[in-house]
Amino acid sequence: MQTIPFLRKSGEAPFTDRGIKKAGQLLKPWSGDEVRGVAIAGAPLSKTSISHSGAHLTPQTIRAMMHSFSTYSIEEESDLWDHNITDFGDIEMHVTDLFTSQSRIHSVLKDIGAQHSEACVVTLGGDHSVSAAAIKAFQETKGRVGIIQFDAHFDLRNTEDGGPSNGTPFRQLIENGVITGDQLVQIGIRDFSNGKLYHDYAKEHGVTVHTMGDVKRNGLLSLLQKSVDQLKQTTENIYISLDMDVLDQAFAPGCPAIGPGGLDSDSLIEGIQYLAKEPSVKGMDIVEIDPTLDFRNMTSRLAAYIIIQFTLFYSGRKGGL
Amino acid sequence: MQTIPFLRKSGEAPFTDRGIKKAGQLLKPWSGDEVRGVAIAGAPLSKTSISHSGAHLTPQTIRAMMHSFSTYSIEEESDLWDHNITDFGDIEMHVTDLFTSQSRIHSVLKDIGAQHSEACVVTLGGDHSVSAAAIKAFQETKGRVGIIQFDAHFDLRNTEDGGPSNGTPFRQLIENGVITGDQLVQIGIRDFSNGKLYHDYAKEHGVTVHTMGDVKRNGLLSLLQKSVDQLKQTTENIYISLDMDVLDQAFAPGCPAIGPGGLDSDSLIEGIQYLAKEPSVKGMDIVEIDPTLDFRNMTSRLAAYIIIQFTLFYSGRKGGL
Amino acid sequence: MQTIPFLRKSGEAPFTDRGIKKAGQLLKPWSGDEVRGVAIAGAPLSKTSISHSGAHLTPQTIRAMMHSFSTYSIEEESDLWDHNITDFGDIEMHVTDLFTSQSRIHSVLKDIGAQHSEACVVTLGGDHSVSAAAIKAFQETKGRVGIIQFDAHFDLRNTEDGGPSNGTPFRQLIENGVITGDQLVQIGIRDFSNGKLYHDYAKEHGVTVHTMGDVKRNGLLSLLQKSVDQLKQTTENIYISLDMDVLDQAFAPGCPAIGPGGLDSDSLIEGIQYLAKEPSVKGMDIVEIDPTLDFRNMTSRLAAYIIIQFTLFYSGRKGGL
Amino acid sequence: MQTIPFLRKSGEAPFTDRGIKKAGQLLKPWSGDEVRGVAIAGAPLSKTSISHSGAHLTPQTIRAMMHSFSTYSIEEESDLWDHNITDFGDIEMHVTDLFTSQSRIHSVLKDIGAQHSEACVVTLGGDHSVSAAAIKAFQETKGRVGIIQFDAHFDLRNTEDGGPSNGTPFRQLIENGVITGDQLVQIGIRDFSNGKLYHDYAKEHGVTVHTMGDVKRNGLLSLLQKSVDQLKQTTENIYISLDMDVLDQAFAPGCPAIGPGGLDSDSLIEGIQYLAKEPSVKGMDIVEIDPTLDFRNMTSRLAAYIIIQFTLFYSGRKGGL
Amino acid sequence: MQTIPFLRKSGEAPFTDRGIKKAGQLLKPWSGDEVRGVAIAGAPLSKTSISHSGAHLTPQTIRAMMHSFSTYSIEEESDLWDHNITDFGDIEMHVTDLFTSQSRIHSVLKDIGAQHSEACVVTLGGDHSVSAAAIKAFQETKGRVGIIQFDAHFDLRNTEDGGPSNGTPFRQLIENGVITGDQLVQIGIRDFSNGKLYHDYAKEHGVTVHTMGDVKRNGLLSLLQKSVDQLKQTTENIYISLDMDVLDQAFAPGCPAIGPGGLDSDSLIEGIQYLAKEPSVKGMDIVEIDPTLDFRNMTSRLAAYIIIQFTLFYSGRKGGL
Amino acid sequence: MQTIPFLRKSGEAPFTDRGIKKAGQLLKPWSGDEVRGVAIAGAPLSKTSISHSGAHLTPQTIRAMMHSFSTYSIEEESDLWDHNITDFGDIEMHVTDLFTSQSRIHSVLKDIGAQHSEACVVTLGGDHSVSAAAIKAFQETKGRVGIIQFDAHFDLRNTEDGGPSNGTPFRQLIENGVITGDQLVQIGIRDFSNGKLYHDYAKEHGVTVHTMGDVKRNGLLSLLQKSVDQLKQTTENIYISLDMDVLDQAFAPGCPAIGPGGLDSDSLIEGIQYLAKEPSVKGMDIVEIDPTLDFRNMTSRLAAYIIIQFTLFYSGRKGGL
Repeated sequence: MQTIPFLRKSGEAPFTDRGIKKAGQLLKPWSGDEVRGVAIAGAPLSKTSISHSGAHLTPQTIRAMMHSFSTYSIEEESDLWDHNITDFGDIEMHVTDLFTSQSRIHSVLKDIGAQHSEACVVTLGGDHSVSAAAIKAFQETKGRVGIIQFDAHFDLRNTEDGGPSNGTPFRQLIENGVITGDQLVQIGIRDFSNGKLYHDYAKEHGVTVHTMGDVKRNGLLSLLQKSVDQLKQTTENIYISLDMDVLDQAFAPGCPAIGPGGLDSDSLIEGIQYLAKEPSVKGMDIVEIDPTLDFRNMTSRLAAYIIIQFTLFYSGRKGGL
Repeated sequence: MQTIPFLRKSGEAPFTDRGIKKAGQLLKPWSGDEVRGVAIAGAPLSKTSISHSGAHLTPQTIRAMMHSFSTYSIEEESDLWDHNITDFGDIEMHVTDLFTSQSRIHSVLKDIGAQHSEACVVTLGGDHSVSAAAIKAFQETKGRVGIIQFDAHFDLRNTEDGGPSNGTPFRQLIENGVITGDQLVQIGIRDFSNGKLYHDYAKEHGVTVHTMGDVKRNGLLSLLQKSVDQLKQTTENIYISLDMDVLDQAFAPGCPAIGPGGLDSDSLIEGIQYLAKEPSVKGMDIVEIDPTLDFRNMTSRLAAYIIIQFTLFYSGRKGGL
Repeated sequence: MQTIPFLRKSGEAPFTDRGIKKAGQLLKPWSGDEVRGVAIAGAPLSKTSISHSGAHLTPQTIRAMMHSFSTYSIEEESDLWDHNITDFGDIEMHVTDLFTSQSRIHSVLKDIGAQHSEACVVTLGGDHSVSAAAIKAFQETKGRVGIIQFDAHFDLRNTEDGGPSNGTPFRQLIENGVITGDQLVQIGIRDFSNGKLYHDYAKEHGVTVHTMGDVKRNGLLSLLQKSVDQLKQTTENIYISLDMDVLDQAFAPGCPAIGPGGLDSDSLIEGIQYLAKEPSVKGMDIVEIDPTLDFRNMTSRLAAYIIIQFTLFYSGRKGGL
Repeated sequence: MQTIPFLRKSGEAPFTDRGIKKAGQLLKPWSGDEVRGVAIAGAPLSKTSISHSGAHLTPQTIRAMMHSFSTYSIEEESDLWDHNITDFGDIEMHVTDLFTSQSRIHSVLKDIGAQHSEACVVTLGGDHSVSAAAIKAFQETKGRVGIIQFDAHFDLRNTEDGGPSNGTPFRQLIENGVITGDQLVQIGIRDFSNGKLYHDYAKEHGVTVHTMGDVKRNGLLSLLQKSVDQLKQTTENIYISLDMDVLDQAFAPGCPAIGPGGLDSDSLIEGIQYLAKEPSVKGMDIVEIDPTLDFRNMTSRLAAYIIIQFTLFYSGRKGGL
Repeated sequence: MQTIPFLRKSGEAPFTDRGIKKAGQLLKPWSGDEVRGVAIAGAPLSKTSISHSGAHLTPQTIRAMMHSFSTYSIEEESDLWDHNITDFGDIEMHVTDLFTSQSRIHSVLKDIGAQHSEACVVTLGGDHSVSAAAIKAFQETKGRVGIIQFDAHFDLRNTEDGGPSNGTPFRQLIENGVITGDQLVQIGIRDFSNGKLYHDYAKEHGVTVHTMGDVKRNGLLSLLQKSVDQLKQTTENIYISLDMDVLDQAFAPGCPAIGPGGLDSDSLIEGIQYLAKEPSVKGMDIVEIDPTLDFRNMTSRLAAYIIIQFTLFYSGRKGGL
Repeated sequence: MQTIPFLRKSGEAPFTDRGIKKAGQLLKPWSGDEVRGVAIAGAPLSKTSISHSGAHLTPQTIRAMMHSFSTYSIEEESDLWDHNITDFGDIEMHVTDLFTSQSRIHSVLKDIGAQHSEACVVTLGGDHSVSAAAIKAFQETKGRVGIIQFDAHFDLRNTEDGGPSNGTPFRQLIENGVITGDQLVQIGIRDFSNGKLYHDYAKEHGVTVHTMGDVKRNGLLSLLQKSVDQLKQTTENIYISLDMDVLDQAFAPGCPAIGPGGLDSDSLIEGIQYLAKEPSVKGMDIVEIDPTLDFRNMTSRLAAYIIIQFTLFYSGRKGGL
């Protein structure tokens, strides 16, 4: 077999610097063996969105954006190079049968959860509809779940008007008896972005709701500490459902439902760092980014950064990665 | 009740010239009465597309683009001002159950067809999946259909891999026994845009296929005349299914599946003018425009122009409009 | 008259959720009857801008953006559903005679003010030139006005060089004897965005000027309280003239004159909430957004949000809405 | 005075190739002396447009695009390097008084025409409203004018509804007694782009109208020859008014009023080459390009190319340049 | 090793239809074995361009665009599925030493040519500077070359002003004694796009120049037949250097140097089909596409289509693929 | 010589207000005489960037953006109108020999420094590679330099892998013995944006590194004061190297390497104001803005504002401007 100098396979990085390792290189395709530590799986479903959404393109975009970052945290003086992030790949969606797509998200994540009890899977949406399946699978494999949902919206809409959409995942979980309202803490709920009917529903079912006003008055970190304490009273397994539209439009211009009055990105990063250190946190999803609407993939870039920061602090847990 | 000079209701045209009537003003919302002549109905379904598509936004975009044109044909020295185009509005799509959406397209168009036998309905997609429902409804209300399909693609894919999508409408019609292959003439089929398996399928089922090579060698008009003659031997009801991607990418930059080697817009306009005059032509759909990808709505603008030209020549038929 | 299930009139929302009411639905076209509470009127004039501006497109864009928000304030646990916002529509502009356009803005707003003394009209620009006409009409119908102008610029330019443009509204008001300088408080005036000559003019005429430096040192709320107190010493009728370019370019990317060093959106929202509660505030305009330059209508979105927040707190006034 | 090697003044070309001269370099600012040959003058007026237009930006854009071309015609094996194109600069527009702007266009072009009888001025719009002033000035200084108007539209609208706008220039010329209809030949008038009332007006006033259908049937060159012959029977001074929207949207994507069914660019270039050789042609305008809407300045690029081709063949006239 | 149903590796196609094979799948990474038939190699160099160019991104873009096409030619009723196109990958460019980059292009292509005498390599630029290295390597491994250059420009600029850039490749070949002018036929050279000095150079060195005027008068096919005959008198090895800017801006909107007056895409495709059948044609490059400027990758799409059509007709040669 | 009223030379401002002077007018082309005070020089080099960059376009963009600002600081009640900013123009870059380009930056800036000891030159990149040449020239003409580098990245990469690129300037300075590490203070270095190897290098060479974490904990002003004090212990000549990517992506969307977690623009402006007052600060560069990627030139606008603020406070120094 011949080799020819200076010929790189299609798709390889065009330039390599010996001193820079890309966070994207941490992603290792799943080999079929048991996985430990942080892993990702794409759930590229956005036909379930009430409004037009290209969020199914996000898993590939976040993977690409991980190549914008290196593996080295100067703040922690720690290099992630020895830590893999397993990439389970993307769950295959059905072209026209969206309920089949949702079933597949559940079955694949349940299979992953069952086979890889030491893995902390970050599910990459897709829209927020994927969380219903993801959280159900999480609880079935980890035990009773406590959810911290970052979101401008309740996502507690009724399922009769439009079926199980990106507006309904937490309603589905409650109505299907998967969770009770006390298992759910919502953070960042925003003015004029929700219906009163669904606030009533949240109250009736004991969902904890922290509005953006609460966040501004109390600080995100303080609310998170309180939320973790509260959820740990009834569960040891916390799941983060991160709808990126919890952020202000200035910081997440690529969410389908952008608007003013939201969180800034520094606060969110700090919040995720805190949660990554918390041993009870065992799963996460990141949803509601539409790369076709974003500016220079800013929002996917931030999501990639959050995954890396999460990995950094997760790996620092006792027995972390 | 007060009135205040120079106050216009929100949504009214900001400026009116006494000598210019806009083609968009020909659109009259359906009153509930029986309709004659050209009418439009929106079928805003594109979640059924194999690739991401915003084609569900097209009915509203085409309506808006009709305001870019006037009602007066200088070539024919004819003003359409006295001709209404009834606007049946848009068929309501289900958020997550796409088969329900397809059923509704069929049932609504069947209701329209049954109640308005003198109407010539132009269905505005949406993606090409809407044609399966639209043509079935057409035949059920008009009698045996002959189809002239302008398209770069067969749209004869199998329905097992992805269900009834924008790649399968004519396969569905054949497999469900709605039509036999001889009822279908395809024009503009393009190199390296289709699978051999589906060409074999077309041949086996007696579908007539005219490639872009055929169009270039024979001229579009000549092929259309031949096609009309052929279809009229077995039916009196011709339906035009116009997939805008039959056009070259230079002329239809807003189709999801753009490419070189296609038709130019002048030829297509001339072809539609011919078909509009042909009494056997009684229905049409226009599909596969994605306004989120287009340049200055060029492709929807062309679609609007085609509807107006169709109306002009249709109204000139004996007993036309 | 027939009806056909699942057929929606063109322009209707494609999907309706029983638990979500859109703030856009609060807008009710003026019926001709007397109006109370918050109302909007479009003044789509931007040909008067010194630089090219598409700000005449903003009234329609803000209306559309109101459909991005719901009617429910979770922070106040209050639903605006029972409150209408009357939409007077848009004032008809002359194609070529801009002085006629300005006269019409004055006469229409004066008619509205005279006939609807209990209405609080929010005039939607257009560029800042509309404020000269709007404030004159306000004072003629309400009595002596005190103005709180949010702006990066004085807008006190001479009218000889270019006539009554978007750089001159407050100069016109002073020079035409409509107001004296003490009736005007300017907030957010920015470095290197104005001429010394016009600062001198402001000082000579007793205009109160709070720069962005003042805002950062004192806080916006504190300055607003001080300004309201000051203006109330000589008037009971405060008018807010909100030039969106008071905001930093990161928060209002769609203003014609963007730049660094401005206000953040959270502070502005808080400021407007405060003013909405203040009984002396009886009119407002929102100007200088160019939707053709904006990113995803962020700036119009923020303007819509400001109108809704204004309505919320206005309606909470004694005898509010 | 010092000099420093490799320091280029701001604005100079960053790279110079000894073998390439840019057509943009042919533009020489008017020195105050008498001018012969082709010259340009900018009339940056587009506030007079019925729809929002950035056409006032076109003179500067066309100048910039002339730097995309060299001075050498390989087809004619002729280098324009020795021919200057005098650049008179831009006429100063009033910010708010559009009638003053129109007067200035007339007075400046009249001054130029009077002082420079051997110059052939190409006026760069701006919108089509500038032609009324330009043609009036042309006739006042050259004598009775014959006009060849390339256009999709009559531009014969009434002036009562919106004043003297971009829809009215030829109506103004006729109504103000500047020309009679027989002095005007319109070429490229398009279906569904005009009102019947104005076709009637054209007929009543003896305007010659060649539609796009005529162009397609007869060929542009043939129609131009016929038109020149016809106009020369009553005048020796032909003026070309080139509204770029005579072109199909595929070839002129940057016109405010784009649409299908228009001319291709090769035909237009050939037509202009023919007219440039015709000794009776003594003035031109190029209007209705909006650089803010164009794709990569394609339309201004074509306009620049047309000016260069015009200069090439003009300079070949006996006593040309 | 476990497997999980419905899990696809990152980067796999999200949907597979059993009846559609993508032309992109024909690309097979070079295995190290000897290669026969059509192959591609990327030369991602565009820092050598006189103007800013992102043409180094084109090899990856063309590969991606090959997934927009299928493997089946309906016009020839031939499926390319059994034909591989070997993908040698991309030549590694130096970050700052552009002459090293050019040397590597030469050495890699020479290695490929030497080791794979039965391969027909299509080099994907990059800018036109890559052709100097590519043609030198071609001749060194194949024997005396005859070049058919499709181009709006001579690319015969002097190398003293800016070094070996995208304006100089054919000058370099002549000056370095690699070829003499009679080995070069240029087709599509355009008005006002070149310097007279370089036309003189072409004439002095016996380069054959066919302008766009020649193409329009004679037809492209006829000129190509003549050119092939002429070149075959002195060589058996013809190399096609396809600068995409030979096309009109309406058909190749993504070339750095767009302009009017060029070739249409149908003619170019037909020309390439003819050349692919010609046994003396043994190499090609495709250059000067900047994906950052293109519209929806139209120009790269066309390039991909040209590669596929070339492969189709190449494979039909006696002993073809 | 004639004059014609209302005729403005091409390129002149279309409108002039007697009360507004544009900061862009402060720029005066270098006359050849000795220069005092703030001056600018463009170093339009970005082919040296590791990733594709249009940063060579920035000098012209920043100059244009200076016309967005006036000359009057309301905060300081000071008008810069009497202060010129000398514009030395742009250094001519070689098309293909990037090392020659870098040499020219050095030689030109050295010539300027030698001839104009009272000038404070702001070098406008270009990418960060220009700083190696600029700082070397600065030290050679001013004496031992202390550097304050605002940056998300060390820019201390090895020069073997890619030569002297935008990732290596400070490494080059150290390795070439121009500076020792203690002369360099880096501020704003960001997580996951650098390699551990280069952090080790920084430590080994005594470079002072303040991360974004440090900035957030201590405040930028405090760190700057500390850094100035530290550097002044060994030098009287401080040079600011401002890589705009020190800013968060929300505030500098036009940097090639955008990301979250960076500085806000208000803090940076305040920091520059402080440094401008510091007598030891005698030179600056501003690098890494790519206008082809920016949104509405926000980032160049901010750079222009920073130059103006720098000029304001610089001119207030004893013997300032």
